[in-house]
Amino acid sequence: MALVRISGSSELSLVEQIVGQMKQLIDNGVVRNGSRAVSIRCFARDHKISAHTVAEAYARLVAHGYYQSRPRSGFFVSRPQVYAHSSDAAEDGAMEPDHLWQLRSHFTMRHDRLGASSGRMPSDWLDIDLIRSGMKSLAAKADTSLAQYGDPYGYAPLRGLLQTRLLGLGIHTQPEQILLTSGATQAADLVMRCFLKRGDRVLVEDPGYFNLFSNLHLHGIRPVPVPRKADGPDLDMLDALAREHRPAMMFVQSMLHAPTGSSLSPANAHRLLKLAEQHDFRIVENDVYCDMLGLTLPRLATLDQLARVFYVGSFSKTLSSATRVGFIAGAAQFVDELCSHKMVASITGSQVDERLVYHALSEGQYRRSVERMRYRLANALQMAGDMLEEQGFEIFCRPLGGKFVWARHLQIDDSEDIWRRAAQAGILIAPGKVFRNHLQATPWFRLNVAYCTEPALLNFLRGLRA
Amino acid sequence: MALVRISGSSELSLVEQIVGQMKQLIDNGVVRNGSRAVSIRCFARDHKISAHTVAEAYARLVAHGYYQSRPRSGFFVSRPQVYAHSSDAAEDGAMEPDHLWQLRSHFTMRHDRLGASSGRMPSDWLDIDLIRSGMKSLAAKADTSLAQYGDPYGYAPLRGLLQTRLLGLGIHTQPEQILLTSGATQAADLVMRCFLKRGDRVLVEDPGYFNLFSNLHLHGIRPVPVPRKADGPDLDMLDALAREHRPAMMFVQSMLHAPTGSSLSPANAHRLLKLAEQHDFRIVENDVYCDMLGLTLPRLATLDQLARVFYVGSFSKTLSSATRVGFIAGAAQFVDELCSHKMVASITGSQVDERLVYHALSEGQYRRSVERMRYRLANALQMAGDMLEEQGFEIFCRPLGGKFVWARHLQIDDSEDIWRRAAQAGILIAPGKVFRNHLQATPWFRLNVAYCTEPALLNFLRGLRA
Repeated sequence: MALVRISGSSELSLVEQIVGQMKQLIDNGVVRNGSRAVSIRCFARDHKISAHTVAEAYARLVAHGYYQSRPRSGFFVSRPQVYAHSSDAAEDGAMEPDHLWQLRSHFTMRHDRLGASSGRMPSDWLDIDLIRSGMKSLAAKADTSLAQYGDPYGYAPLRGLLQTRLLGLGIHTQPEQILLTSGATQAADLVMRCFLKRGDRVLVEDPGYFNLFSNLHLHGIRPVPVPRKADGPDLDMLDALAREHRPAMMFVQSMLHAPTGSSLSPANAHRLLKLAEQHDFRIVENDVYCDMLGLTLPRLATLDQLARVFYVGSFSKTLSSATRVGFIAGAAQFVDELCSHKMVASITGSQVDERLVYHALSEGQYRRSVERMRYRLANALQMAGDMLEEQGFEIFCRPLGGKFVWARHLQIDDSEDIWRRAAQAGILIAPGKVFRNHLQATPWFRLNVAYCTEPALLNFLRGLRA
Repeated sequence: MALVRISGSSELSLVEQIVGQMKQLIDNGVVRNGSRAVSIRCFARDHKISAHTVAEAYARLVAHGYYQSRPRSGFFVSRPQVYAHSSDAAEDGAMEPDHLWQLRSHFTMRHDRLGASSGRMPSDWLDIDLIRSGMKSLAAKADTSLAQYGDPYGYAPLRGLLQTRLLGLGIHTQPEQILLTSGATQAADLVMRCFLKRGDRVLVEDPGYFNLFSNLHLHGIRPVPVPRKADGPDLDMLDALAREHRPAMMFVQSMLHAPTGSSLSPANAHRLLKLAEQHDFRIVENDVYCDMLGLTLPRLATLDQLARVFYVGSFSKTLSSATRVGFIAGAAQFVDELCSHKMVASITGSQVDERLVYHALSEGQYRRSVERMRYRLANALQMAGDMLEEQGFEIFCRPLGGKFVWARHLQIDDSEDIWRRAAQAGILIAPGKVFRNHLQATPWFRLNVAYCTEPALLNFLRGLRA
């Protein structure tokens, strides 16, 4: 009697039917571990299908560990002794909120939580067609170059496109001034590895990006926080702090700063560069939300033309976070050093990802997709701002775009209270302190405006008033 | 008169024809920079094609920087002011050969050189169909999860497959003991970041993997070289060195060691683990050539069950170097720490790559492809060994598999001479010193047997005898 039933009318291929049913039979113990499998020839004859089909199914069962192939003896059943994941990766409540907590809760979040202060976009805001069509073009064009290591600087045609995009921001580059990285995170990490050493001091923004703080900490680099205002870092304070601490570098997010959503004014950009010259520190300008802005305001790199500034970008925010492609632009000799460090740390980036991003960007679809996202975010920002003010919150500033607002409730002195109460309602609102270098308490917290129409969140925020 | 000519019988799509011809017209100055482009409607009417097609072509021209779109005014020509790459990345002759030279010459090699000691496989040895079919399945299955950040531990189904594969080597794991990394390189880098500090001493093999030396150096970790013999590290020497230097860790490549091709015997594996216990150091076991071996000899991790050993693997060598997927397995609490460091350094890996690798591995095709590669390499190893011995070379050992032999010419005392003479013949044979931690001179050098039938290489090696 045949244990496996194969149907010509199933939606599954013949191979998938055999593999699926055999796995079940083995998992359920119907087919005994260690027993010899029916030979390919006999299986094919019994089920009146081709031996080729059976061979393919058996090969997959071997790949999944359900069959062992013994030369000259045939196939034997070997039920895989693997176990399920023993626990949820990050229990939100179990850990004290710090930078690492934010990082882990952000990226290993349980799917039943509403991540209202995360950077994630809701799934239906993402344009999966962009990825899908990029993948199809890439599959069609795939040749052996796609099995070899890519260029350590990154896929040359994509770097060419980036030159054009940078030119659109008034930043002039040669190809050897652009290095592709595994997201903006690797770019910052390479700068630390390459140009900073333990004990160095660097200026950071307060509040700022939690992962930058974690990374500096792990490298033994000492951050000196500069308060962030609605039009950029507090430059009087910066002047005084630079005089006192002699920093080697500053990390700054000029436009759509996370978490506050604020943007650097051109006048402050000019003054910041003069201060950098005066105190002789370099600047890493993070502009990962560039495509969410739309307006071409001058960046630090526009004014300075990459003399003292490194300019960092990414496509994780507007194209796909699943492809890890960012870049850093700077003076050619520095970028060459960064490239050496990149090769030592990771050889090259993913050529597959780089070519996918190239395909997506080089077609008109990306621009339209980004325009749609901008439009949607502009509406959400407006609505979220109005709603928050109505409910007794103060907004740090009305952002020019992007997905974040930085808000405080006028009656609540520490946003850790909000975090606790939100967690009870199944909502993850990170306390603002995780965006501060020394985890200082703060009434402020970050909201992702894309979630601001979620009834659960609205109810929760309304309830805080009472 | 229409400048662009569109043909229905061209192999190119209408969009590609318009884009290609417009770029040429702009590059050649026929269409003047700054001039206004014909409107979409007029272009469509003149060429009797749909406005949708023209809009798509214009959008691509914008993406490539040849058009600027000005709201309510139309499109304007803006010839991209980007320049070609000004110089070749790595001039083989210009740099003294060291670890970084090996790294750069290895991965940015000019295509007119025969990279006879590189790790690259000849293009026609690679199974591009595996990548192509993986991409097609992935494109078909793509949903919004493919636009979000992936699991920081790595794509769960792939980690499940790895459990099965490790079980095949007698290594029992739970899913939380496996962390996907961006190639084996990131795995080693994370171990250094996480468990070692500046000034620590670690045991390495001599000769060994050049990139490991570079990375240790950049982290300020001091390598203590242990001579590699044909059946593993020299354990008497190791015992003495460990007593003297109190190393925190050892990096070892048990099977198909690069550059020598040698493999650790089970008895030496047992003794090495006892020495590690006695001197209390941990071991990172690199097994990136695992699938090139075929035989399931016990690994260090097989004997020790990941108590003291980290086991590192990769798919760059047998599937594709363009996808950057490796992994590290170890005790759960250590892997959890490694995961935090990975998130700080790079958030997550490429979910696209991880899913591609999963698709390729979970079908029978990968196993067959690897078997073909093994068969081909076995023949090449045999031929290369015979040929070298005939031409007056000594072989360090006859490898069990893989792509490398470690050889010396009996009349040449320093393989730097061979490097120089080979370079003049357009062949890149790295001097053996780049595989040694302190770049000590050596008569030995590494050959990739896949190139050993190349007439240019054969002629060169024959010529050395005279």
